[in-house]
Parts: sequence; structure tokens; C-alpha cells
Amino acid sequence: MKRLLVIGIGAGDPDHLTLQAVKALNRADAFFLLDKGEEKRDLVRLRRRILEEHARGPYRVIEARDPDRDRTAPAYTEAVDDWRGRRADVVEALVRDELGDSETGAFLVWGDPGLYDSTLPVLEEILGRGTVRFEYEVVPGISSVSALAARHRTGLTRVGRPLRITTGRRLAERLPEGAEDVVVMLDAQGAFMRAAREKDEKDNDLDIFWGAYLGTPDEILIAGPVREVAERILEARAEARERKGWIMDTYLLRSRARSPRRWSPRRWSPRRGSPDPGE
Amino acid sequence: MKRLLVIGIGAGDPDHLTLQAVKALNRADAFFLLDKGEEKRDLVRLRRRILEEHARGPYRVIEARDPDRDRTAPAYTEAVDDWRGRRADVVEALVRDELGDSETGAFLVWGDPGLYDSTLPVLEEILGRGTVRFEYEVVPGISSVSALAARHRTGLTRVGRPLRITTGRRLAERLPEGAEDVVVMLDAQGAFMRAAREKDEKDNDLDIFWGAYLGTPDEILIAGPVREVAERILEARAEARERKGWIMDTYLLRSRARSPRRWSPRRWSPRRGSPDPGE
Repeated sequence: MKRLLVIGIGAGDPDHLTLQAVKALNRADAFFLLDKGEEKRDLVRLRRRILEEHARGPYRVIEARDPDRDRTAPAYTEAVDDWRGRRADVVEALVRDELGDSETGAFLVWGDPGLYDSTLPVLEEILGRGTVRFEYEVVPGISSVSALAARHRTGLTRVGRPLRITTGRRLAERLPEGAEDVVVMLDAQGAFMRAAREKDEKDNDLDIFWGAYLGTPDEILIAGPVREVAERILEARAEARERKGWIMDTYLLRSRARSPRRWSPRRWSPRRGSPDPGE
Repeated sequence: MKRLLVIGIGAGDPDHLTLQAVKALNRADAFFLLDKGEEKRDLVRLRRRILEEHARGPYRVIEARDPDRDRTAPAYTEAVDDWRGRRADVVEALVRDELGDSETGAFLVWGDPGLYDSTLPVLEEILGRGTVRFEYEVVPGISSVSALAARHRTGLTRVGRPLRITTGRRLAERLPEGAEDVVVMLDAQGAFMRAAREKDEKDNDLDIFWGAYLGTPDEILIAGPVREVAERILEARAEARERKGWIMDTYLLRSRARSPRRWSPRRWSPRRGSPDPGE
């Protein structure tokens, strides 16, 4: 039986790798790296560096071109479904043609395979087709959500309160309620700008904890009352995206309902780069 | 300046440790282990095992008794605040009396320090008192949420949909809406039983993915339509709690709105123990 490993490799810092992930890297005969195009070569390089450092081999690296998603399609879910179908075609061919019958292949997934990642649904889709058989295992990873909270040294949850993890698209529809904290992923449009203009439904101000390229040398962190720092985040994003050609960022929005955070420079210890006056 | 490290050590599998966490373990002069009483000696032992295996020393281990929380108090948030205050007293004394002026102390936190953990708020409370000065860093960890999803080999999020992470107490107030998936932590009362009796507000059935002692030799996984497996989960919990004296469990609830999961034994590969007929 062919075997696949879906390995979470963390949010960007190579040291986010778990010992379990390192062991999994050393069980694989082949690594499938899907390349999203020129602008994300950085990410393919970082994956290759992880392999060079931790996989003691022998192993093969098989690169393939990830299908493009139609980002202009009005129906988001359908566009993603269509893209996943084409991605499944690519992965199905890889597993069928590039992996021997008792071999183990691996996918290296940024962050955690459980959070807004298509690898598991794609594997399920392929198994549903019945054209190629395999077993698979999942190795959890440090999500960008955990990395964000750690770098800002804040909890994601407050006593007995819920956390919502959502997308920029969804945030644009509904701002955080007072009781819950909200982490936003996949926000290409700057949906937090709405939070900068409005308060929550109980008239509380919102704080934002934003981070990009978490755990990498390019990491940027900005935090503070969203109405004070939102413009600065927009500028930092635009500048970084221009400079690097791509951006991975996420943020936590929190109603300042009960215990206001004391924004002071005292406890700020940036990993690299300039300190952030917002914290 | 004294320095503290808050190190996420994962959900129970010692191999959940990240390379970053291993490096952090080796920077600490002293480890503070708070013992919650006889029934959780297992957890203290597991922490000690992690130190023995990965911290190359020299280091000191300082055990202290975690204050008890009043679990009969009607006002949950106030009871937790009161407990945190007393915990802050204990930790303040540890940092003040047991750590030299340029030494580094470390706390080992189960799962991820950002999710329903009191270490960061306790440190903030101590800094707010101004009685002892220190800097601190946070090392993210594999949360039980990521571990749960990995062991069940399911995503936590569906395309463009939100995930809510909440407590058993909150779940009892509001069942999942059709659009969102819900992870429940800290559910001592079996709030999922309500989900077994009712459907979601759009009349969809709910599936549950439940796990206890994730990543440990005692791991138990049960998954399936919640109305079919809820009783079995209740029994498994009661039996395990009786046998071990404590339980750590969590679960994902998902409306079966769009793509029903195919429950088949085919792709089930339990880590240890007997296969689960629900999956």
C-alpha cells in the first residue's frame, strides 16, 4: 500500500518543526512540492532548506505546478471547489506515477494542516474517485494563529470566552461581538479597516494584533487600538507585498470590553527589526 | 534582568515538542512545575520526562502547589479571576525568591500557551503589581485542537467558513450554526449531549470528532454522527476518568450541511488500541 504523510511544518520559522515532523520527514521516500508560481519561490526554497537540514535521505523531491485559482470568479466556494478538483488531478497523477507501491510520499504544509489548507480535502477527493489507493497520516503543525499569539505574547482566548477563526471575507460581513475574540486569516482586502471605522456592537473599541511572515527574518508585528494602527498596517502590507511579491499575514481582533491592555514599550522585545511603537 | 520562558510543549505526545521548544528548554536555569494535586501527578511526570530527555542541564526543578479553584462558585469568571490572583501570588514568590537576577526560568504549558491557559495573564498580573521585574518570551505549541484534527485526519475549517473554539459552558448556551465548525474545550459536563438531541438551526445533523489524552498511550478517539456516538463518548469518558483520576479531552462539532463525511472503516489507522467502529 502507498502511504502519504501530510506534515505541518509551522508558520515560517524552521524551528517550528516538531520532533514528530522531523521523524516523519525521515520516513518519506519522496516529497511532493507544489509550486504556486514565481512569486512564492521563497516558500519552495524554505521547504527545501528544511529537507536539507532534517531529512537524512535518501529521498526524491518532485516538484509540480499548482493549478492557478480563478481569483476573479464571483462565487468563492465554487471557484475553490473547481481549483481543488484540478489540484486533485495533479496530486492523483503524482501519487499514481511517482510513488512506488510500498513507498511513502510526503506533503509539507505551512502552518497546521487543519486550518484553511486544502491538502486533506484533496486527498479525500482522490480517495473518493477510487483511481489510486493509499493510506495517509497527518502530523499537526504550529499554526500561524499560535505563532501570532506567541509573538505578541497574548492569549487567544479570555476566561470562558470563545475564539472565532475566520476569513477576511467573513469579517467584512460581521465584526467581532463583544464576547469573542476573532482571528482573521486569508484577508487580502484589509477587512480590518471596517473595524477601524466602527466599534463593536456594544460600543467597545477594538484592539488588533497583526503579524506578517511570522517566524521568518521578514517578520513584521504591529499591535494597538485598531483605529490608531490600521493605516500603518495597510502601508506595511503594501510595502512588504511590493518588495517580496507575496505576503502571508494574520491578525487577532479583540473588543476592549473588560481589561484594557496596557500599551507600553516596556515589555516589547522584537525578534528582529525595529520596535513597534504601537506596543 | 530576570527572564521567563513560557514554553508550549504540545498536547501530550512528547514528540509534539518543537525544535524551538527544545532550544528554549536548554536556555533555562530553572523550571517551575505547578502541581495540581495527586490526580494530575501523571502530567507532572510527563513534564519531568521531557526535561530528562531534552534539557541537557544543569537546571533546577522547582515544584509548587497550584492553588485550588473553587469549582462550586456560581460565578465562573469571578472564580477564575480569584484563582488567578492566588496563582499569581504563588508565581510571584517563585520568580522573586527562586530565580537569580540574570537567570532564566521556564514554565512548561500543555498545548499552546494561547489557548485557555492562564500563564500569560498571570505573568501580566504580576508585572502589573510592579513588585518583581522580568522579561518574558512565548514559544508556541501544538494545541490539543491541532492534535485532535490530525488524529482524526480532518480539517478544522471548510472553504471560507469560520471555526469557533469555545467552552462546554458556552456550547450549552448555543449550538453550532450551520456555517461554522465548533471545537469545544473544557467541557466537564458533556455539553455535546444537547447536540445529540437537537439539530442545528438549519435542521442539519451534527457530526462529532472526539479525542481524549491525545498523543499519549491512553489516547481514545471516537467519531461519527453525534446522535449515534454521544452515549458511547459519555461512557468512555466516565470509564477513563474513573481509571486515571483525570481526563483531558476535546471535540469538534460540525454540521453535516454540505458534504457528508463518508464513515468507513477503510481509512482508519488507530495509533494504539482498538479501532473505533464509529469511523
